Amino acid sequence: MSKITIAIDAMGGDFGPEVIVPSVIDYLKANADTRIILVGDSFTIKPLIPNPQIHLVDVVHCDLSISMDAKPSQALRQKSPSSLHLIIDLLSKKEADAALSAGNTGALMAVSKQKLGMIEGITRPLICGVVPSVDGHSYLLDMGANVDCDAKQLLEFALIGTLVANALDGKVSPSVALLNNGEEEIKGNSQVKQAAELLTAHRHINYIGFIEGHNLYQAVADIIVCDGFVGNVALKASEGVANFILDIFNREFKNKPYLFPLFWILSKTMHSIGKQIDPRYLNGASFLGVNGVVVKSHGHADSLAFTQSIIYTKRMIESGIVEKLQHLSQYDE
Amino acid sequence: MSKITIAIDAMGGDFGPEVIVPSVIDYLKANADTRIILVGDSFTIKPLIPNPQIHLVDVVHCDLSISMDAKPSQALRQKSPSSLHLIIDLLSKKEADAALSAGNTGALMAVSKQKLGMIEGITRPLICGVVPSVDGHSYLLDMGANVDCDAKQLLEFALIGTLVANALDGKVSPSVALLNNGEEEIKGNSQVKQAAELLTAHRHINYIGFIEGHNLYQAVADIIVCDGFVGNVALKASEGVANFILDIFNREFKNKPYLFPLFWILSKTMHSIGKQIDPRYLNGASFLGVNGVVVKSHGHADSLAFTQSIIYTKRMIESGIVEKLQHLSQYDE
Repeated sequence: MSKITIAIDAMGGDFGPEVIVPSVIDYLKANADTRIILVGDSFTIKPLIPNPQIHLVDVVHCDLSISMDAKPSQALRQKSPSSLHLIIDLLSKKEADAALSAGNTGALMAVSKQKLGMIEGITRPLICGVVPSVDGHSYLLDMGANVDCDAKQLLEFALIGTLVANALDGKVSPSVALLNNGEEEIKGNSQVKQAAELLTAHRHINYIGFIEGHNLYQAVADIIVCDGFVGNVALKASEGVANFILDIFNREFKNKPYLFPLFWILSKTMHSIGKQIDPRYLNGASFLGVNGVVVKSHGHADSLAFTQSIIYTKRMIESGIVEKLQHLSQYDE
Repeated sequence: MSKITIAIDAMGGDFGPEVIVPSVIDYLKANADTRIILVGDSFTIKPLIPNPQIHLVDVVHCDLSISMDAKPSQALRQKSPSSLHLIIDLLSKKEADAALSAGNTGALMAVSKQKLGMIEGITRPLICGVVPSVDGHSYLLDMGANVDCDAKQLLEFALIGTLVANALDGKVSPSVALLNNGEEEIKGNSQVKQAAELLTAHRHINYIGFIEGHNLYQAVADIIVCDGFVGNVALKASEGVANFILDIFNREFKNKPYLFPLFWILSKTMHSIGKQIDPRYLNGASFLGVNGVVVKSHGHADSLAFTQSIIYTKRMIESGIVEKLQHLSQYDE
């Protein structure tokens, strides 16, 4: 039986091969059951692989990479493939079981949709992320692929999320909540209120009601559904405040020399905290709805975080989520 | 010349008089130039005022208070006034220069609108908050009063925010940004894209473009405009992650006894951080558009935070913002 194979874009994200190559090597040293095809500029990649591990990874050379600010339409139009195009290509030809990139999200989504096609019955692809809490996590969808959603799209997100929680975590009847500006029934904009009615009526969805922004990090529901615009802003705002807290924390230390000896101990504590809260450690957002497993790592992932995204990608493959989503229509109300 | 007078609802918020009364007394001890009328159950209020300070504050008795989960329509329908009704009443009769409550936001908004009426030219009242950053702050509007906004309403928020930054901070041409799911021009839902065109074209608005959720805490613009649904979710998500970080931090200490001696020093550091980041210390959201200064304190404000909201209310009075907003129409494009 052939190994699980992941095609990885070595050039994506803020740091490219410098972060991704060590991450891949670390992963492979611990996981001999996975094959990784690393796509990108081999002249940059190969020197980053220590000699003893050179045999562990397959490198496919590609001259081109897509910049972080290129428009999706440029990615679709370009004639020569970039590393991002090639990993999707490998997936579409079934030479890989999944594609993983830290690169341009819009381009990755556009190319995935174009080359892999949509799973029948799913209108538009979405991005599903994992939001941490002290004792668990929630799947949040959509994280930004779809804006101006109507209630029916939110219903679709709820169904897809239900299948994800079932496939990844084995949950039989995962709870679904709608992200809202209040808990009470009267709260919400027209889209969310209509979606609440659809979710309540649907017999395959365990809808538990509205949750508010501050509940995101409390795992009060297995799945949290929202419009992509709202999801994107909420998550980025959370990221922003977490960084703000850390900036102030660091500044406090600079201003208080007597705290320096504590800094070492504190940074270990902060590191431990970071493991539990930061998107780096729950790194990996999946593109759901396209006909293949595509995972997007956070653009500024460090090596540790990128390794998490490889682990997450493997779990997505093993969950059989794409095959399960192909049966989505049997869950129609 | 009579003193500035603030009518305060003693019964609002999660803690009521227990937090509000000490807060008011502390404020009055430091600010002899302000008169405070404290409205609520005098049998609960008066015992909380130390004898030497009993003369500092005027207490108006009221039997009723509105619960935190009462619907705004209930507040409008009830025959006997609650403490929340009475502070707005005092403001409408000009027996106070402002009304401040930590209570039910929806009820406060409904009663304010009903008794004070709208400033001419402003379609709907909005809630304007202050978002902190390392070196400054931004005004965020709308924080939740208006959902399903159209582009014209976002334009109105931008104009109102401009007048606020001018009145409170003396800024001549304060910068305005739209909260979006990306910086690039192509990003955004239809509402935000249309609003961008209106703001760009308006000669009295210094529109600087889109900002993303993580820019909220970086004071990249003096005023940040968004739909109330999005603003509410983004701020609550930020609150949620800040609390999540603190929860994990506390848990780390419980698990590591060798850190206990550090805890005292750390809690002072955290306190100092808290002063700079937490809504408690920039506590106070103003209801703009109604014909009077109405400020809402955060429901779970402690005494220190509530004192901040009193200070903020006084600044709002001194800024003359209501009079300035009455001239909003002269800024029409």
